[in-house]
Amino acid sequence: MKKLIQISEEEFKSFEERYRARFINSLSGFKSANLIGTVSNEGQTNVSIISSAFHLGANPALIGFIIRPDVSPRHTLINIRETGICTLNHISKDFVERAHQTSARYSLDQSEFIECELDEEYLEDFKAPFVKNSPLKMALEFVREIPIEENGTHMIISKIKSVWLTAGMLQEDGFIDLESQEVICVSGLDSYHTTSRLGRLSYAKTDKKPTWLK
Amino acid sequence: MKKLIQISEEEFKSFEERYRARFINSLSGFKSANLIGTVSNEGQTNVSIISSAFHLGANPALIGFIIRPDVSPRHTLINIRETGICTLNHISKDFVERAHQTSARYSLDQSEFIECELDEEYLEDFKAPFVKNSPLKMALEFVREIPIEENGTHMIISKIKSVWLTAGMLQEDGFIDLESQEVICVSGLDSYHTTSRLGRLSYAKTDKKPTWLK
Repeated sequence: MKKLIQISEEEFKSFEERYRARFINSLSGFKSANLIGTVSNEGQTNVSIISSAFHLGANPALIGFIIRPDVSPRHTLINIRETGICTLNHISKDFVERAHQTSARYSLDQSEFIECELDEEYLEDFKAPFVKNSPLKMALEFVREIPIEENGTHMIISKIKSVWLTAGMLQEDGFIDLESQEVICVSGLDSYHTTSRLGRLSYAKTDKKPTWLK
Repeated sequence: MKKLIQISEEEFKSFEERYRARFINSLSGFKSANLIGTVSNEGQTNVSIISSAFHLGANPALIGFIIRPDVSPRHTLINIRETGICTLNHISKDFVERAHQTSARYSLDQSEFIECELDEEYLEDFKAPFVKNSPLKMALEFVREIPIEENGTHMIISKIKSVWLTAGMLQEDGFIDLESQEVICVSGLDSYHTTSRLGRLSYAKTDKKPTWLK
């Protein structure tokens, strides 16, 4: 049996600030890494990396994410409040450095699309910008904002209005194969990972063990 | 340029229910896979797999997760409300089948620890059960429940009270190396993945490009 180390709340509270941020940010596990694209009413575009998007429900199709107003995505929050829309774009291995760079503190009149060399793309008549390089992207509509008083962050609930995905990702049964397009995930604040599929497991029933699907 | 396929809200709303669930559940990207351990006031233990845990903040150290009351983790919700505590346990490659099996609809008087052959473990004087096999686990305290009226789910905000991790996972700067213990992630409803680190990127600054850390 491997040795476990315990770190209590008292101990991690006393950690140096950046050390604690790296530690606590690692605890929730592997996270989806996404670029949120927005535009202001004046037409200024913005794109920010977030690692807090999560599935909230399939019917209606909802995605939630957390915005921290004290860091870069604050422009994202302002734009979403103004326009009621944003885009969510998955990141693949080939542009992970450029995606990470969107977390730098650019000013409100700078577009990370230009500063980070990411190509803007407009799909159908949706007003918010998509990331052209992204293999899987969504048009999202703002539903509701929940203030998290415990730390001053904002949880955004959004509704999926439309999905664009690379041909070949969609499997026969509705599953989307993210790995086939080298969609990456993130752990902690700055560690990026590709994935290797172990497999898909059969729907769990109480009377039999799950099996790996072909 | 690869071909993009569009699937609009109108289209995916008309998908067959299971197909739509697989599709929409895939959209948020790679997710953390965790086992939540709870106990009722009567001492009945419960453990359920969830893929909705997310980092909510480092100071205070908060983790959020979503509970769907219509599926297996409903016992989890009842127990958390009763006792105000739970454990969050990461899943590694060697017990992913048993972890998945906890999603079967066992009855309230059955413990998934027994049914799924997962070993219970009690650490310090924390009343909720941990998963012994897990390389990284946390004692969580209930903070607040936010009803998501849009679909009848419940968002739980919890506070990290203590962390146990396998010796060697904690790096010099506070980052926790999940990959070293083969912690897995999940995509969609049933696809499990190990990860391969691309690397860690330097803190983004507006005046220079990020570099891969050694």
